[in-house]
Amino acid sequence: MFDLNAYFAEKIERINAALESILKTTERPDRLLEAMTYSLMAGGKRFRSLLCAAAAEAAGGDLEDVLPAACALEMVHTYSLIHDDLPAMDDDDLRRGQPTCHKAFDEATAILAGDALLTLAFQTLSSIAAGSDQQAVKWLRVIQLISHAAGYCGMIQGQMLDIALEGTQLTLNKLKSMHRLKTGALIEVSSRCGAELVDANSSQIQLLESYAQYIGLAFQVTDDILNVEGDPAIMGKAVGTDKLRQKSTYPSLLGLEESKTFAGKLIDNALQALGSFDQKAEPLRAIARYIIDRKK
Amino acid sequence: MFDLNAYFAEKIERINAALESILKTTERPDRLLEAMTYSLMAGGKRFRSLLCAAAAEAAGGDLEDVLPAACALEMVHTYSLIHDDLPAMDDDDLRRGQPTCHKAFDEATAILAGDALLTLAFQTLSSIAAGSDQQAVKWLRVIQLISHAAGYCGMIQGQMLDIALEGTQLTLNKLKSMHRLKTGALIEVSSRCGAELVDANSSQIQLLESYAQYIGLAFQVTDDILNVEGDPAIMGKAVGTDKLRQKSTYPSLLGLEESKTFAGKLIDNALQALGSFDQKAEPLRAIARYIIDRKK
Repeated sequence: MFDLNAYFAEKIERINAALESILKTTERPDRLLEAMTYSLMAGGKRFRSLLCAAAAEAAGGDLEDVLPAACALEMVHTYSLIHDDLPAMDDDDLRRGQPTCHKAFDEATAILAGDALLTLAFQTLSSIAAGSDQQAVKWLRVIQLISHAAGYCGMIQGQMLDIALEGTQLTLNKLKSMHRLKTGALIEVSSRCGAELVDANSSQIQLLESYAQYIGLAFQVTDDILNVEGDPAIMGKAVGTDKLRQKSTYPSLLGLEESKTFAGKLIDNALQALGSFDQKAEPLRAIARYIIDRKK
Repeated sequence: MFDLNAYFAEKIERINAALESILKTTERPDRLLEAMTYSLMAGGKRFRSLLCAAAAEAAGGDLEDVLPAACALEMVHTYSLIHDDLPAMDDDDLRRGQPTCHKAFDEATAILAGDALLTLAFQTLSSIAAGSDQQAVKWLRVIQLISHAAGYCGMIQGQMLDIALEGTQLTLNKLKSMHRLKTGALIEVSSRCGAELVDANSSQIQLLESYAQYIGLAFQVTDDILNVEGDPAIMGKAVGTDKLRQKSTYPSLLGLEESKTFAGKLIDNALQALGSFDQKAEPLRAIARYIIDRKK
């Protein structure tokens, strides 16, 4: 049986060490770097970077092959959380069990720390230029993939829609397509970057993309479920907020039990997409199972 | 005599056409894209992209060689203006003669439009991957240069300092080093990217860097001068705001006349740095002269 906890713990340690070493390259710590570090090292699940590493492993590679991408994905994800939490957006006070960045620092610092983490993601992705020309082609491609997924055709568009649609009753399809942009795009690209960086073949890439689409959606469905019945002490943030904000969610549209069934089905589909992969895809399978069992 | 107006007009037209075609790649226009377009196409001076093109020309190249970099520099610059104008930062209502982005739209949209333009800059810089491997090395290097200059060791750090130091009396050296980060870093990298993309030799790169340092500083000194005696109707924004905010500026530290002398000296130094360049550096020389003559 694959020991997911040990696998997660080891990878997270390596990812955190890499992130910390990037943040320590500056000459002198200051308030801006302090705010960036505060949010980036606040003990996130590292879901996107783990997915990137696990996809690389499934295709025969290793975390080391994709480390700059894994780090960049966490920076992009963290910047998006900092900005989404701002008073002008979701106005959240608590994130990962700590005051949000603008609460711990101030609004201007939070905006700039988010900007700086987004910029640092691309600095990290371009910092391996010294390698071979072929490596450069590969990393330029990863920058293309991540900037597209994170940008105005992906994650940022999703956040715009989420704000615009707050308080309106959505159809299930509209909800899905909003989440596909807001959280799905970055989750899908995490898996894709992992696969492309270790030269997965096109059939593998397609299957991994399909896998990532299912777990991306499942991740959002379970997020909505946790917002109904999760334990705020474990989650490190308030629950019941979706209902308060009259947000359309899977539980609000499908009911709680039906949402759980739906999430289970998505995970089954994700596992099926991995059918032709050998035991090197065990981490990806474990990640899929973890998504419905998670408590935070 | 080099006709700067005709030169500027022709280049700006090509840069604007390139920017517009990038913004038009999306399927359907929406509020986010509208806000991005509103700020990016608001008739900026295109100083950074022109500098990039002129540096490329001085080293024997052409605007076409550097067009994605020229566009990306304008996107990065515009995003920084949108975020700097936010209520949590400088709280400005007017920019380039129009309401600022958060005034014309709303705060959330302005934050996201800024984020999206920053992300689009890197998407633009990585979109030429289809070319040769050597091209990929070059563009990866440009991403490295721009992300470093725009990031927490450059422009964003400068904005942090600018906010932190507001209302305190600075020494001339502190003021210079703040501006070197806030506006200088991106101006310097504009020239550097232009030079590197057309394979300038290291001596040319060094001289162009020195030139860019002088004009970057001169640009800021004249900005401060215009904030004292500029015509708000020509400038499209309020004047006298630095004094109101008790900002340390060159005029406040040196006096108005001494500031003008200082700017003139910087321009002389910039022109001297170009001494060994032939007539292909005329656009760079014209840009240097324009800086002290400009009315906006």
